[in-house]
Order: sequence, then structure tokens, then C-alpha cells
Amino acid sequence: LTSGTTRYRVDLAYDGTDFSGWQIQPDARTVQGTLEEVLTRLAGGTQIRVAGAGRTDAGAHARGQVAAWSMEIALEDGDLEHALRRMLPEDVRPRSVRPVSARFDPQRNAISKTYRYRLDRSRAGSPFLARYALHHPHELDRAAVVEALRRLPGRRDWTGFAGAACDVGDRVRNLVEARMDEAPEENVAWFTFTADGFLNHMVRNLVGTLLEIGRGRFTPDRIDRVLSSGDRGLAGPTAPAKGLFLWQVEYPDEIGSAGDGDRFRA
Amino acid sequence: LTSGTTRYRVDLAYDGTDFSGWQIQPDARTVQGTLEEVLTRLAGGTQIRVAGAGRTDAGAHARGQVAAWSMEIALEDGDLEHALRRMLPEDVRPRSVRPVSARFDPQRNAISKTYRYRLDRSRAGSPFLARYALHHPHELDRAAVVEALRRLPGRRDWTGFAGAACDVGDRVRNLVEARMDEAPEENVAWFTFTADGFLNHMVRNLVGTLLEIGRGRFTPDRIDRVLSSGDRGLAGPTAPAKGLFLWQVEYPDEIGSAGDGDRFRA
Repeated sequence: LTSGTTRYRVDLAYDGTDFSGWQIQPDARTVQGTLEEVLTRLAGGTQIRVAGAGRTDAGAHARGQVAAWSMEIALEDGDLEHALRRMLPEDVRPRSVRPVSARFDPQRNAISKTYRYRLDRSRAGSPFLARYALHHPHELDRAAVVEALRRLPGRRDWTGFAGAACDVGDRVRNLVEARMDEAPEENVAWFTFTADGFLNHMVRNLVGTLLEIGRGRFTPDRIDRVLSSGDRGLAGPTAPAKGLFLWQVEYPDEIGSAGDGDRFRA
Repeated sequence: LTSGTTRYRVDLAYDGTDFSGWQIQPDARTVQGTLEEVLTRLAGGTQIRVAGAGRTDAGAHARGQVAAWSMEIALEDGDLEHALRRMLPEDVRPRSVRPVSARFDPQRNAISKTYRYRLDRSRAGSPFLARYALHHPHELDRAAVVEALRRLPGRRDWTGFAGAACDVGDRVRNLVEARMDEAPEENVAWFTFTADGFLNHMVRNLVGTLLEIGRGRFTPDRIDRVLSSGDRGLAGPTAPAKGLFLWQVEYPDEIGSAGDGDRFRA
């Protein structure tokens, strides 16, 4: 039995379609708000505040969001996970819940995050991916996209790929991987990006730019021009949120990964 | 340019969540009704009637439904496919459209049909499968289920697995395959059934019975008892429609498969 204040970590998957993003806002359905409401009820009315590893945009999804909170609760840990499974709506699902160090901060302790972006490459658009991918039946010049992806990794100032709402001062992030994978048997392509942090809209602006390169509207060296100028006007349009997944958050070994949590197909 | 009356075949995928099934009904959104409405508009108001290979239940999906109709239209075939892609809603998608023999009947010409049923085996239920699978985190005794599946194939009277609404006289069908496949990395299991025809609710009643066997509530020989008695009361409950997919319809070689149509992930 747990008693006194315990800090908990939850690994979450959510379908972002019907949420106004992760971050709590008045009069909007958000993932953070939904989680805080359920936890506050479980805590008998004491307001619980939840910290998340990454803020996801309205309409964007998560396969591996990580969140944490502290609460006083007299419940076996398995019962807390069970209660969350029962009380959360079917579009926000806890993959695992467990007690962690009182100092665990899901955002600051993260080593890196991985976002993935899905394209539906079928001609007509799969009815099963309408909410979970960008339908992009257009030309995709593989060699040009691969050449553009090759230019991305490194510790760089990403100002040219940041959204207008990005209000952080330091726009330097270390992008450690950028790649494209294709699953032709299901007409799907994925972009995958891993970095120690991402700016607002950065993945969606990278994808929008890569798609312009894939259609031959920009050449691959457009990447270097956006990076060196910091000029958002040189990048492509912001790709729609519905193709975007916060895929996983990586922590040091002593904190650990989701491990024995549920595996979900995205 | 096509002119005079031409018969067309469309291979369709649909998300059945927001449809009252395939078959047209007054005052209900159905797949057949949606398709007829679009085709009637394309035909300039002449009412078009569509024949389908199989009637799917409300909430059930299709990856490979086949439908046909005859119309007088002066459109290149590629333009007809393009018009259907543009005019059909995003939950009904044409995988391919092509002219066929004037005598093509998608139901009577079918050699067999394959239905698949998906289980979400994760503890919490994937948010991305909430509309497309039955969440079944319960025990599933693999050996018992495999033993039960082994008892199914053959030319049999399936009365005991037919729904109350089944109004056909001859309930003999030849089931050529019944199997279970698991994808543990995504916590998913599939049942697959191929037969020369299926009775109303037959797949959902088979799945409901197999799940009872998997939980140890029935032994595998329950299959034989339901078959020999024809007593629906001995079978398990009807599994929910949302896990069911009309997967594909098989035709003789001279009619052909969807072939070069879109491949969609289900």
C-alpha cells in the first residue's frame, strides 16, 4: 500500500483528433486537462497538476507521451493503473503507470524525443487513416527527399523551421536522426525525427518542406538556405497535425523506458 | 471514350462506423445509398442501382467490398475513378474502378469471400483501434481456440451460428478456411474465415463462440454441438460489428481481382 505523497509516471497513447492539443486551456478539451480532471477525482478533490514530456498540437497524436504528477493516495499501484484505464476516455489510454523518484520531471529528464509523421500514399486515401495520416498521393522524389534528410542532423539553430508562436529564446537543438521509411504493401510512408528537443511546429514545417522537395518545387539545398537564413518564408507550408505522432521519449537508463507497458499499433 | 451502356466494377474500402451498414434503407446513411446517390448525380439524375458482393452490418468495415452498376456515361474510365474519388466521402474510398462484362454480378459470380475479425489484446485498448477492433484483454487459450477452429471447415449447415434475422432457406455453406493470426508486437489478433457464402451474423457468432472457448467457458467441442443441433442458444454472444472487415471477394480468373487498385492498411 502506498501512503504519503508519491510521484507517478504514466506512459500515454492518445488519438488527438478530438483534443485541442496536450496543454490545458480554459473551455477546451485537452489531454492534460482530461488527465488532471480524472486524477483530481481520484485524489478526492485535491487539485492534481500534471507535467508532460512534450506539448502536442491540436489534432496531433501520441503513441508514447510521458506525464507525471504527485499525489497522496492509498491504492495499490496496479489499482491506480486500473482506475485510470476505467476513468479515462477511450481516446486517451494509459500504457503503464508506476511510482517514480520524487524528482522525476518528464520534460527536463528526457534525453531525446522521437516524432513520426505518416503519409498515406494511396491514390484514393485509406478510410482507416483519414484521421491518422496526411493523404499525399503526389510525386515523392525519393532521392531528393533522402538528400534533404541527410542535410538535417546536427546541433543547429532551427529558427527557420519554427512556428510563429514559438516564443523560446534559444532555438538551438541537436537533431540526431531524420529518416524516411516506406511500407509499400500498405501505401504508407513515415518520416522519423529524433532530437534533444523540438521547437513549436518544427516537425510539421520540416515535413511541409520535405514534401515540396519531393514534388520538385524546391531542391534539397533549400534545407541549408532555411537553416542559414532562419527565414521561415523560405520553408514549405506547415503539414497538417493529423499525420503527427509523439512516438517516444527517451530517458536515462535509471529512469527507464515504458518497458512492460501496453504496445499499441499507431 | 465510353458511350452507350457500360457495366462498371468498383473495389471499395469503407470505415463502417458512421454507416447503417451496406444495404440501402430509407432515412439511414448506408454505403449502397451513398454510392447510388453519387452515381445518380454523375449520370445526370438517372437513378443508378448498385449491386454489392456482400451486405455488411451497421458498424462493420470493408477493405475489399466489390460493387457493380450499369450506366450510360461519356467519360474516360480514369475520369470516372477520379470523379468517384472526389465525390465520395472520406469514409468510403474507391480502390479501383473499371468496365466489366455486362453480365457481371458481384455476388453470384464470387467464388468465395473472406471476412476478418480483429481483437485488440492490449490491457488498456489502443486509442487508434477503438473503432476498428474489439478490445479483448481477457484470457485467450490458444490451444483451445486452435482446436475449435480446426473443427469448422467443411460444407455444413450453419443454422446454429446464424442470426435471428437470417431469412434464407438453405443454410449450407462451404467454409474453406478458419484461422487465427497474432501480431504480438502490436497486441493484435485476427480471425480469418473464407467460405463460398456466409449467413447473417455468422462471422460475429463464430467469433463470440471462439472467445468463450478462449476464456474456458466452453470447451472446443461446443462447436460440434452448435453445428449438429443447429441451436443458436448453444453458441456464444454475437461479437460487436466494429471488429469485422469484409476483407476480400474472390472471383474466377477471367473476372480478376482488384489487382492494380489501391492497397490500404486496415
